[in-house]
Amino acid sequence: MNRYSLAAAMFPLACVAAVFIPFRKTSSVHAAPATAPVYDKNENLLPPADYREWVYLSSGLDMSYNPKSSGPGGESMFDNVFVDPQAYAKFVATGTWPDKTMLVLESREAKSKGSINLRGHYQGTGLMGIEVHVKDETRFPGGWAFFDFDSPSVHGTLIPQKAPCYSCHAAYGAVDTTFVQFYPTLLPVAQKRGTLSAAFLKENSEPAEK
Amino acid sequence: MNRYSLAAAMFPLACVAAVFIPFRKTSSVHAAPATAPVYDKNENLLPPADYREWVYLSSGLDMSYNPKSSGPGGESMFDNVFVDPQAYAKFVATGTWPDKTMLVLESREAKSKGSINLRGHYQGTGLMGIEVHVKDETRFPGGWAFFDFDSPSVHGTLIPQKAPCYSCHAAYGAVDTTFVQFYPTLLPVAQKRGTLSAAFLKENSEPAEK
Repeated sequence: MNRYSLAAAMFPLACVAAVFIPFRKTSSVHAAPATAPVYDKNENLLPPADYREWVYLSSGLDMSYNPKSSGPGGESMFDNVFVDPQAYAKFVATGTWPDKTMLVLESREAKSKGSINLRGHYQGTGLMGIEVHVKDETRFPGGWAFFDFDSPSVHGTLIPQKAPCYSCHAAYGAVDTTFVQFYPTLLPVAQKRGTLSAAFLKENSEPAEK
Repeated sequence: MNRYSLAAAMFPLACVAAVFIPFRKTSSVHAAPATAPVYDKNENLLPPADYREWVYLSSGLDMSYNPKSSGPGGESMFDNVFVDPQAYAKFVATGTWPDKTMLVLESREAKSKGSINLRGHYQGTGLMGIEVHVKDETRFPGGWAFFDFDSPSVHGTLIPQKAPCYSCHAAYGAVDTTFVQFYPTLLPVAQKRGTLSAAFLKENSEPAEK
């Protein structure tokens, strides 16, 4: 597992089976807004070219469910999550995701020293990978699937349903197999609408670990 | 200077004179889209209530131009930057900001252990502060001004033009007093359109410091 697949696997949305190759160019943001997932004849997912204009949910830096994990070279990486605007509006209104929801996880290089910045981390132009979590109820067992993109300009391949990310998302995702507990503006919506999973509520009723 | 003003001052957009008080509630995202800055009779800026639905530019964690700076308690903080969609579209097309551009800097608590996450940092529901950078050419000397918000539901106060953030942004901002060098999808646009400042180009033609 190289630095990119490892780093991407750190993030809760991520479920990377393939090896990420850093993208050579940043994705274009000129495409028309997507309204629903589109597949090719091989059942691959077309890239959501305009995802950087979707609604931003949150970012993480070096998130991991392994307290000791780290890339071989110790490199840091940001993860940014975006959702299509229609699904976002529906979530704000109901606390749940509608059919055809698409969530995009973008992994991006973290830099530290550059221009006037001398400390902490900021995001560089190096795009490390993209994954999309799609809700398509009549198409996928359980209603959801993950797609992995080797670049923002090629079609995404389906990650098999037996991959551990599916069971992990099902077990720990706060709302409908998604990690709403890490999306700070949506967690209060789910709390208000009463849509948090029983498992998440049980976990949070127990004393927090220090 | 308390932890909030210090942490906010770390970020290049930030120019905090007032003391930040952590917001008690996350900003609502139901407001109608703003198309231009609106001021009250005291020349304060009305809060852009829907900024979380604007276009996301980037995030940083504990960014600082002081290599040794750190909050008194060592707490970490994320900064997220958003821009109004009209200004974003104009920048993508031209590499420059139109009049009435609004950039929002949101400072948000960084958490580490929570749910299945055991390492790295993610963003919590605690909103630490908001600042807005406004381009309003006939209103402000130099065309731009910073406003500081004590909460997302009250009007923002103008940061005086003599504050050091204005001269720092003017000297080091890659495009028109803004830190486009930290916005990974816009930096290539400015490079392509030839809108990077002479100072930024000069800085980047010199050998980078290790």
